Amino acid sequence: MDTNEDWKTADLGFAQVDMDRERRNGFPEVIFGEGKSAEQIAAIMKELSGRSSRVLATRVDAVKAEQIVNAVEGAVYHSAARAITWRKSGLEAVESAGYVAVVCAGTTDIPVAEEAAVTVEWMGSRAERIYDVGVAGIHRLFARLEEIRDANAIIVVAGMEGALASVVGGLVSKPVIAVPTSVGYGANFHGFAALLAMLNSCAPGVTVVNIDNGFGAGYAAGLINKNRGVPAEH
Amino acid sequence: MDTNEDWKTADLGFAQVDMDRERRNGFPEVIFGEGKSAEQIAAIMKELSGRSSRVLATRVDAVKAEQIVNAVEGAVYHSAARAITWRKSGLEAVESAGYVAVVCAGTTDIPVAEEAAVTVEWMGSRAERIYDVGVAGIHRLFARLEEIRDANAIIVVAGMEGALASVVGGLVSKPVIAVPTSVGYGANFHGFAALLAMLNSCAPGVTVVNIDNGFGAGYAAGLINKNRGVPAEH
Amino acid sequence: MDTNEDWKTADLGFAQVDMDRERRNGFPEVIFGEGKSAEQIAAIMKELSGRSSRVLATRVDAVKAEQIVNAVEGAVYHSAARAITWRKSGLEAVESAGYVAVVCAGTTDIPVAEEAAVTVEWMGSRAERIYDVGVAGIHRLFARLEEIRDANAIIVVAGMEGALASVVGGLVSKPVIAVPTSVGYGANFHGFAALLAMLNSCAPGVTVVNIDNGFGAGYAAGLINKNRGVPAEH
Amino acid sequence: MDTNEDWKTADLGFAQVDMDRERRNGFPEVIFGEGKSAEQIAAIMKELSGRSSRVLATRVDAVKAEQIVNAVEGAVYHSAARAITWRKSGLEAVESAGYVAVVCAGTTDIPVAEEAAVTVEWMGSRAERIYDVGVAGIHRLFARLEEIRDANAIIVVAGMEGALASVVGGLVSKPVIAVPTSVGYGANFHGFAALLAMLNSCAPGVTVVNIDNGFGAGYAAGLINKNRGVPAEH
Amino acid sequence: MDTNEDWKTADLGFAQVDMDRERRNGFPEVIFGEGKSAEQIAAIMKELSGRSSRVLATRVDAVKAEQIVNAVEGAVYHSAARAITWRKSGLEAVESAGYVAVVCAGTTDIPVAEEAAVTVEWMGSRAERIYDVGVAGIHRLFARLEEIRDANAIIVVAGMEGALASVVGGLVSKPVIAVPTSVGYGANFHGFAALLAMLNSCAPGVTVVNIDNGFGAGYAAGLINKNRGVPAEH
Amino acid sequence: MDTNEDWKTADLGFAQVDMDRERRNGFPEVIFGEGKSAEQIAAIMKELSGRSSRVLATRVDAVKAEQIVNAVEGAVYHSAARAITWRKSGLEAVESAGYVAVVCAGTTDIPVAEEAAVTVEWMGSRAERIYDVGVAGIHRLFARLEEIRDANAIIVVAGMEGALASVVGGLVSKPVIAVPTSVGYGANFHGFAALLAMLNSCAPGVTVVNIDNGFGAGYAAGLINKNRGVPAEH
Amino acid sequence: MDTNEDWKTADLGFAQVDMDRERRNGFPEVIFGEGKSAEQIAAIMKELSGRSSRVLATRVDAVKAEQIVNAVEGAVYHSAARAITWRKSGLEAVESAGYVAVVCAGTTDIPVAEEAAVTVEWMGSRAERIYDVGVAGIHRLFARLEEIRDANAIIVVAGMEGALASVVGGLVSKPVIAVPTSVGYGANFHGFAALLAMLNSCAPGVTVVNIDNGFGAGYAAGLINKNRGVPAEH
Amino acid sequence: MDTNEDWKTADLGFAQVDMDRERRNGFPEVIFGEGKSAEQIAAIMKELSGRSSRVLATRVDAVKAEQIVNAVEGAVYHSAARAITWRKSGLEAVESAGYVAVVCAGTTDIPVAEEAAVTVEWMGSRAERIYDVGVAGIHRLFARLEEIRDANAIIVVAGMEGALASVVGGLVSKPVIAVPTSVGYGANFHGFAALLAMLNSCAPGVTVVNIDNGFGAGYAAGLINKNRGVPAEH
Repeated sequence: MDTNEDWKTADLGFAQVDMDRERRNGFPEVIFGEGKSAEQIAAIMKELSGRSSRVLATRVDAVKAEQIVNAVEGAVYHSAARAITWRKSGLEAVESAGYVAVVCAGTTDIPVAEEAAVTVEWMGSRAERIYDVGVAGIHRLFARLEEIRDANAIIVVAGMEGALASVVGGLVSKPVIAVPTSVGYGANFHGFAALLAMLNSCAPGVTVVNIDNGFGAGYAAGLINKNRGVPAEH
Repeated sequence: MDTNEDWKTADLGFAQVDMDRERRNGFPEVIFGEGKSAEQIAAIMKELSGRSSRVLATRVDAVKAEQIVNAVEGAVYHSAARAITWRKSGLEAVESAGYVAVVCAGTTDIPVAEEAAVTVEWMGSRAERIYDVGVAGIHRLFARLEEIRDANAIIVVAGMEGALASVVGGLVSKPVIAVPTSVGYGANFHGFAALLAMLNSCAPGVTVVNIDNGFGAGYAAGLINKNRGVPAEH
Repeated sequence: MDTNEDWKTADLGFAQVDMDRERRNGFPEVIFGEGKSAEQIAAIMKELSGRSSRVLATRVDAVKAEQIVNAVEGAVYHSAARAITWRKSGLEAVESAGYVAVVCAGTTDIPVAEEAAVTVEWMGSRAERIYDVGVAGIHRLFARLEEIRDANAIIVVAGMEGALASVVGGLVSKPVIAVPTSVGYGANFHGFAALLAMLNSCAPGVTVVNIDNGFGAGYAAGLINKNRGVPAEH
Repeated sequence: MDTNEDWKTADLGFAQVDMDRERRNGFPEVIFGEGKSAEQIAAIMKELSGRSSRVLATRVDAVKAEQIVNAVEGAVYHSAARAITWRKSGLEAVESAGYVAVVCAGTTDIPVAEEAAVTVEWMGSRAERIYDVGVAGIHRLFARLEEIRDANAIIVVAGMEGALASVVGGLVSKPVIAVPTSVGYGANFHGFAALLAMLNSCAPGVTVVNIDNGFGAGYAAGLINKNRGVPAEH
Repeated sequence: MDTNEDWKTADLGFAQVDMDRERRNGFPEVIFGEGKSAEQIAAIMKELSGRSSRVLATRVDAVKAEQIVNAVEGAVYHSAARAITWRKSGLEAVESAGYVAVVCAGTTDIPVAEEAAVTVEWMGSRAERIYDVGVAGIHRLFARLEEIRDANAIIVVAGMEGALASVVGGLVSKPVIAVPTSVGYGANFHGFAALLAMLNSCAPGVTVVNIDNGFGAGYAAGLINKNRGVPAEH
Repeated sequence: MDTNEDWKTADLGFAQVDMDRERRNGFPEVIFGEGKSAEQIAAIMKELSGRSSRVLATRVDAVKAEQIVNAVEGAVYHSAARAITWRKSGLEAVESAGYVAVVCAGTTDIPVAEEAAVTVEWMGSRAERIYDVGVAGIHRLFARLEEIRDANAIIVVAGMEGALASVVGGLVSKPVIAVPTSVGYGANFHGFAALLAMLNSCAPGVTVVNIDNGFGAGYAAGLINKNRGVPAEH
Repeated sequence: MDTNEDWKTADLGFAQVDMDRERRNGFPEVIFGEGKSAEQIAAIMKELSGRSSRVLATRVDAVKAEQIVNAVEGAVYHSAARAITWRKSGLEAVESAGYVAVVCAGTTDIPVAEEAAVTVEWMGSRAERIYDVGVAGIHRLFARLEEIRDANAIIVVAGMEGALASVVGGLVSKPVIAVPTSVGYGANFHGFAALLAMLNSCAPGVTVVNIDNGFGAGYAAGLINKNRGVPAEH
Repeated sequence: MDTNEDWKTADLGFAQVDMDRERRNGFPEVIFGEGKSAEQIAAIMKELSGRSSRVLATRVDAVKAEQIVNAVEGAVYHSAARAITWRKSGLEAVESAGYVAVVCAGTTDIPVAEEAAVTVEWMGSRAERIYDVGVAGIHRLFARLEEIRDANAIIVVAGMEGALASVVGGLVSKPVIAVPTSVGYGANFHGFAALLAMLNSCAPGVTVVNIDNGFGAGYAAGLINKNRGVPAEH
């Protein structure tokens, strides 16, 4: 284990910011914006931007976002994703070859898909968006299949019964990360139906993140794609 | 309401057999074999066969079945379906035009699918079996699609994540009855995952029965197909 | 499988509308209004109305409905059902013989029952409403029994313990589609009690849809009744 | 609170038998036989029989029962109920006027119904058994309705969807105690479906006990009927 | 079964009021006020008051109550119970000897306890209130024990872990009806913890109603106490 | 058991205050503020302060707190903990040697941690706060490990997956009390995930309280530390 | 953090035994016997006994125990607790003043209570057993109250509704550790009912361990009592 | 979409083997052995081995395995993993650079970890096993940290509270795939506790598969590592 000198924490009073995470995990601590004030988010972003290559805050509504973007130079708000990104000036927009496909079933799943896509992009990978291709009209999926198959990692975002993850998983040779969304009602139980479906997928190679956790899927896909070339064939 | 004379019950001591059900529901009371002895099942079958056009007993294992078939003349055991049928001599094997498609996802779903198919046939309809066409290899489904689309009612039997019901539902113009099976493990919760998925299907026209309830699905499909002609077009 | 030319999608930016569904499924894509703006619903309705025989949008509140009805010529709002329908001029109001009985247990179940009934009617079938006939006063049900028994399909809408589905199922010879509603409190768990009850119905021929899913039940019943004559006897 | 002298306990080593319960609760401690050996049950029965008017042991299988009946003079085994009773010689078989109706839905519910009925009888009340009258053949219930309505308390035992409790509750003016049974499969969840249904009954006056708890229902009904005359009218 | 003439229903357009229930069940249909407007409640109360000995509406907030009380002559609002009662002029306030004890654990359980008590009184029985005697300070319960033991039926209302029902059940010889309340937080799951505890009570004679269902408990207790004399001894 | 004279209750009308609890339990009854008005809380505090060494009210928001602090002399509001304390003048601030470590995983867990810490202090023990040391940056925990190990009892407050309790439990020789918080989303189920994780901790010596129950953990830890000296070694 | 030299692990091939735990946690690693063979358990016990003051193995059935006791010199089997203990020769049987009270509700809870008691004793504390004092006969509890109140920590073991934990918690001034057991049936859900009840206890100072986890409760109580004197007063 | 000629299925009577999957997914269909006979598994293996580079069958017990290995030339049984592999002669044992770390918490998690490791190896990647390093003795994990950090993908297998996934996730810069196991008891609910914990992990980059699904995790990790070089730095 590394010596204590390597582990750094910034004490902001209301938070102990983990300043060592980029060295340890490849990317700095990400700010979960829900339940934090605009002032707090801005303060953490500033602290992190002083020592990191990039900063990400998720679950930020438009009102807080405006304040933060005004306070943190270079910060950009992605309204559909409800996320704020900051990247050190001079950093390449796309650092990795290859791309991540972000596939979603319905239009109401788009905010979660966007959180995933913005996370992928913030990590320096390209995200290819393939939206509203749910299995009730499966031809929409087949029309985009080549793009999906050529990705290095595939994120599938779906609510209701979450069947899209299994269908995609059965057609590709790349890791699939499934994100259940809380879209649905009644016996959907706020995304639990889709979560269970995805965990029980009959297609191998499908892994799952928490309900509505677009960020988590984007992060895992970003790690998979990092430093990886375009596959020679599929 | 009809007068009491119309409602008849046969008192076998261990059971009050509903002798009026064929008049009221179109088909006589069906015997749920689990937890009943071979003697009891045989006694009820005999009682019913005296006054009904046909008799059905479900969830009967092979050992009990042998005893029953020996005791009840004309009774036939369907081992894959674990069901015994009896039909009055002279009754047409197929009384209705058109047919019911019975589709299942994997080989382990077959016993439930067979219970459904045998029920359909016992009701006088033709059952078309289309097995092992799960979404992990979706081309197997497309290869049989025309047969499925031409049915008057479609039963989809699937365990694990139950995605097949939604995929089929999105491709046809007939009522789909989905049967979740208890095939799976872990977060499948003995079929609960597939049940929730099917209840939340994004494809309209899908209705659902209890986990492993092949009989229930067959019965509903048999009612839909009864007296119905082959559809002119789809 | 059909060639790609047959599969059509209209790209509205915020949605990929499935323009092929009427050919494939007999009825066009239905718009789930929850979470969509009045503008979006109106735009999809216009797009669909250009190429479809009819259009349906569900879960639309009165405020949004007013805007939509003003924007889409020929659109009609059904406030009790919270649904908007549009039918091509010249289309017969009733295209099928026979009818669907829509039965509900209590007055608080009526919105769900109306969603079912309006869906049935939109599909060109007649819907016979039989409301507030729950089992606590079972004579109310018996008084309407003949109407129920003569239908080609029966929808039973009930909250609380959902017992009405089993009682009706035991008295008829037609397929029964049960809709649990979220009416109740405490150990009702937002309709889960009624859902489980209906899935476990002791009456055969009962199939179930998601909690509060009046549309789904109406759609399945509409498919059953489509092109079907009045039954000769029951 | 009473002084300590009034509270008595018999220490059998493996159990602290509550010898005061008959004074306090009207009836002595009842022995739950599951997980106890025949020797232990016999020992407790002997201890209690020395100081009580009656003794009851529930959940006793036939093998253990034989040993116990041999060891405890006057003990009687009720095999359908899986219960052993002992009543002090000279005690009236029926001590209370009026009776308790024990109604059950199907033949597989009979063991639970019998446990209830034997408990009622052990408490000195008459039990009227009305079995196999489930709602799938509701005429069987109406045929016995007068007997049910004239009871002082009504026990309704049902598995699957438990609808019988609500139907009975809507037809009578006496307290109804509902017992869900674990009869069913799949989404029945070992009686949970019937339990929820009964707790959500739309008929007032229905109270519920634990799944398969025939004893509990019998005990509550026995207390209600105790010392109570035949009602003048209903 | 009675002839149809005996079964009466009043059609108010928005509801089919069961006018036969007092004859059948001893008491008229009770109005569940939640989700009904003041006008609707008032209309049903007027309809029922014309043909019934008494009327009860539950779950009525203060704002609606004021309107209703102004509209229905003789109606009385019980604010703590959130219930409105009406009794025919000339009816005895107390029609039955004996009384029902209504016991509750904490002050936050009082609204549910009051709903129970008001229901008991509306049915013509006396209710003895014994409030805030939870097991954390068990001496408060022992101080009131004699009053509890002398009742003909005992209602125990408790949230959190619901232990009071078992403690009371172990000390009395009368039927105990337990009402779990939704008081609590976290792993209480809105009353589910107390519900399960009460269903599993180690004290016999305890039956249970739905979470927060004070009315249901009061109704069952009122039926038990009806026409019953003060017990000679306990 | 003590005679009745020892058990005292103050009847405030809306509550039966247990005035005997300090003698019996070492500390007086604690007021759960949620659902009580400022007036009620103030009245109970005054009643208790007349006969107790100290008074505590939890779950009090800032608006109510201001009123109460104005009404009750000596009352102090702890806004982060949402608690009001009162201690008899002359009482030592710290009555026990040793201290309780209050450890929390993230900044959003702080309100629950503060409720625990304030409870500990109110009971006369010292609380050492060690906040925002979750396992995603485990070096933050190791940096504070000595402080944690020297405590007499350790409270670990964590939401999400609650892993911190197991990690701490594996590193110390003192009792650990784990508090799951409702921090998280999706399959967190309002703290249920963390609750289950803590109950299943692989580290021995970990006990658990209800979700968000900082008070309960603080109370148990306060009892453990009471009258206990600084441990000689660990 | 300590240097790596301090952390020791013994590699037995099938297990990495943590040889440092006694230094770190005060007591060595405890062996969970379920799923391990007698040979494996014996091997780990021997390894640990070479470097530890004591060794404990839980969940060991009688067959395996005989083999282990024969193989490990000084090992003792406690059949009621299903545990094997070994203590270094010369170690005091009781190392701490004061004692732990182990209270249980029914005879079927005794195995879990014994696991707790044996754990307490293995840790060098005295365990006072107070068994079969459930709330259905609450006088049995009051008869033993003084012994309970004088303990330094109290373990309460109960199945069914788990009410005993709250009742005890309301009568003492020491930490209470509640152990739900899986004793019960139906809506007990294998101990879940008692677990929820205990987590929601209205008595403060109650903490909870996993269902049937007698060891965990004993361990926590042993830590609380360690090095602690008899309390001067209570 | 590819033409039908590309999609091949082998009809074995009892199964429709997907012969096209290796082309489509990179690896052939994997045989889930549970519920299939030795004969069936052997037949499918033979069929697949004729057209595929490799074959894998999981969940095969030792008895069936012996038969299969005898029947299928070149098949190898991995008893700890309960899996059978077959690889075309001439195929490189390791086809990809880099490796997958398979980390597990306790010895009882090893079968699931082995299923993962064998799957990884079957796919042509190297698997580094790091077993029995659970958080109760966290130094065991730190001792192996460098090996874990240098992997291209990390599988973490843990039962009980599943905390290991979060701890590992916080220390590495590679994708972590978490496998909850059903190891545990009581409120573990057969692995549900660990599943929820892993889905709620506070460490980003953690994705999750079904309970006990070692194969699924191995497959996803094998896809990630495929064709990927040893990372230059971490």
